[in-house]
Amino acid sequence: MAEKFSIPKGTRDFNPQEMVRRNFIFNAIRRVFESYGYVSIETPAMENLSTLMGKYGEEGDRLLFKILNSGNYLTGISKDDITDDNLNALTLKIAEKGLRYDLTVPFARFIVQHRNEITFPFKRYQMQPVWRADKPQKGRYREFYQCDVDVIGSDSLLNEVELVQIIHDVFASLNTAVTTRLNNRKILAGIAEVIGMTDRFTDLTVALDKLDKTGQEQVMAELSSKGFSAGSVSKLKPFMNVTRNFEEKASFLQEHLKISPTGIQGLGEMMTIFDRLKAAGINDGVELDITLARGLNYYTGTIFEVKAEEVEIGSLCGGGRYDDLTGIFGLPGVSGVGISFGADRIYDVLLALNRFPDDYQAGSRILFVNFGETEEKFCLPLASKLRKSGISAEIYPDAAKLKKQMKYADDKKIPFVALIGENEMRSGLLTVKEMKTGEQRELSVDQLIDEII
Amino acid sequence: MAEKFSIPKGTRDFNPQEMVRRNFIFNAIRRVFESYGYVSIETPAMENLSTLMGKYGEEGDRLLFKILNSGNYLTGISKDDITDDNLNALTLKIAEKGLRYDLTVPFARFIVQHRNEITFPFKRYQMQPVWRADKPQKGRYREFYQCDVDVIGSDSLLNEVELVQIIHDVFASLNTAVTTRLNNRKILAGIAEVIGMTDRFTDLTVALDKLDKTGQEQVMAELSSKGFSAGSVSKLKPFMNVTRNFEEKASFLQEHLKISPTGIQGLGEMMTIFDRLKAAGINDGVELDITLARGLNYYTGTIFEVKAEEVEIGSLCGGGRYDDLTGIFGLPGVSGVGISFGADRIYDVLLALNRFPDDYQAGSRILFVNFGETEEKFCLPLASKLRKSGISAEIYPDAAKLKKQMKYADDKKIPFVALIGENEMRSGLLTVKEMKTGEQRELSVDQLIDEII
Repeated sequence: MAEKFSIPKGTRDFNPQEMVRRNFIFNAIRRVFESYGYVSIETPAMENLSTLMGKYGEEGDRLLFKILNSGNYLTGISKDDITDDNLNALTLKIAEKGLRYDLTVPFARFIVQHRNEITFPFKRYQMQPVWRADKPQKGRYREFYQCDVDVIGSDSLLNEVELVQIIHDVFASLNTAVTTRLNNRKILAGIAEVIGMTDRFTDLTVALDKLDKTGQEQVMAELSSKGFSAGSVSKLKPFMNVTRNFEEKASFLQEHLKISPTGIQGLGEMMTIFDRLKAAGINDGVELDITLARGLNYYTGTIFEVKAEEVEIGSLCGGGRYDDLTGIFGLPGVSGVGISFGADRIYDVLLALNRFPDDYQAGSRILFVNFGETEEKFCLPLASKLRKSGISAEIYPDAAKLKKQMKYADDKKIPFVALIGENEMRSGLLTVKEMKTGEQRELSVDQLIDEII
Repeated sequence: MAEKFSIPKGTRDFNPQEMVRRNFIFNAIRRVFESYGYVSIETPAMENLSTLMGKYGEEGDRLLFKILNSGNYLTGISKDDITDDNLNALTLKIAEKGLRYDLTVPFARFIVQHRNEITFPFKRYQMQPVWRADKPQKGRYREFYQCDVDVIGSDSLLNEVELVQIIHDVFASLNTAVTTRLNNRKILAGIAEVIGMTDRFTDLTVALDKLDKTGQEQVMAELSSKGFSAGSVSKLKPFMNVTRNFEEKASFLQEHLKISPTGIQGLGEMMTIFDRLKAAGINDGVELDITLARGLNYYTGTIFEVKAEEVEIGSLCGGGRYDDLTGIFGLPGVSGVGISFGADRIYDVLLALNRFPDDYQAGSRILFVNFGETEEKFCLPLASKLRKSGISAEIYPDAAKLKKQMKYADDKKIPFVALIGENEMRSGLLTVKEMKTGEQRELSVDQLIDEII
């Protein structure tokens, strides 16, 4: 029996309080996205596996949740097909659909499928769950929400500026201090060129990505073990030591990347972005971090990463520019840039910092105590009137003991209780109790509305 | 290649305009639910198949989307297990999880799993997609949203009254005329008793359910073919002919059901509900329809069905009271009542009636034309200022040809365009064009905010 009560591991139920808090985050993010003119789309939870497979690497293919074909999925499959050796091929025969793994690949598919209906540049946001058959652990779930915002069909750096503004506005409205770190894959390519390791670009970025967690010595050790020469590694060292302000970093790079046109181009892009950010009034909380790498290989320009200042936790938001996302679906040469907010981590940060607003409460503002049939009928139109004024109100469904009804209001944190008996029905003045203070007052309906709205 | 561009049959992408319209509906429903003190929960898309199987009948089991186990799903399965004859047993071995089929069974599971954290009566709403491997056809999808509202842990009829009020408020706020038909399974049981067919209750309700579509003659023919005697069928006839107002129907039933205590109890419940509705000011748009049956066998009391008045389409909302929903998960005797709004059908109705508000537009209210670097930097803080005042604003990302930028505003239905060049930067007065009228004016930023907010 116990099994029936549980949900699949790595998934979660959200109770009313969690929902209120999650929606506080989603609404804040949505409001900011919309204030910049982004519009929302939604794509189905299921995509054809032909759309999803091969887009996330071998590991990603393995982590896709696959949906068994309806009806007799064994039709056309011979016994010889069914062996452990042949598992991947068999899987594709009995499962044609999978749950989406992220919002980026479905978005690319959406653009290609609907390209004739879309006006470019297309500024879209998307807030939906994704599913990954990852090993569940603290803070890692098999179903979680992503909040993506992308602009596609424009290579203007103003888009990057706007995304940094969006990050700034979102966390300002969540009252949470963050640092946004920016880098550019072209700067990284320049560094690879300068240390003579252009052909080992991926190894370099994979190692650099860990600088934050493991430190310089470890990064250098990893590179050496991967066959980077002592000369290359020592040439890399100064790049890992640049910790000054933007202007100083820029002049360091101007000097050290001068042999790499790609690197200098990347630097130029960063200078434009920082120049425009200044014009937009954003001077703090953004820095150039030339060791920021981020794993995803499809990034080609600016990369973004956002960390909380007051809590030790992974990145709250990240993204980058990609020059050929839709190429895999037959529409090459469309540049885009986007970032993704991790609602679950943001939730954990706000919870740790106690930043959820107190008054952001679910449920009724007022409970009408039920003293019986006559009182119930008297209260029905009153409750309707309150609702029309924007006040959520409910009548206790039974003429239960007063103590029970008051406990209900207390348990549900309903802030006001109306006690309407014979006297109140006669006078038209309602006895209203404020639960927090215990204070009781007699108010007309209109006074009540003014008081508790 | 073409295959890669498509999505699984029966699923849909929603473009920005569809999203705006869908959210218009969801927000209207949510606001009403919350005004009555209902709070929201969410459950995972995936449930254990042990939770879902056997709850929707054999057909329902077949229509569940099943998720292939991760890793080597053939582990522990012998070749002999893999035969067409043995398909169902094999399925359960290789797939332990499924996508939710409705919101009711996951809600029942939620209540049982979290019963110690819940204060009863528990008033919850839930708006999430569900998935069914049904044959797709016009208006029937494999992924669609349900908007459920239920109160559980109370058998008070005031809950039924509240649900009718909710239906009334939702469709009033959507500006759409509907009729809510109510009946009570006990009245139906009474009719079965009166015509001597208590043991054929399900056959009776299945046939009556079609009265609307096929007419009286067909219903009678179906019952005869199922072995109902001529006497029974002719005793049923007057019940199908009651088309007067509530009071007349009630006195008809009082007379015709008097030999059935169950039937009289059902009538009594309906009389209480109509009495309270009158007290709440709801006199129109609700009727007792004693032939309303609705298929679901777990209903035990009141049943609800809502139809559009101005469009020929299936029901927009339906539900009922169930006395033992959580019994299947080991928590018997908890009564509840709930209804479900079908967002997709409501969408179709509003579209057919052209009832979506015109001004409910996605995207920016104003576009700043981009004339080059200096102008771009001048516009950045202006756009920020507008956003802070609640006006969504964007700057065109490139200094493209004016014609192209104006076409962008036009295609995206952005109502205002700001043209800021040298003169405007010098004077501080912005040239603002209203796209609909073509009218151009010079405004200060503050005037602009007042004008377009």
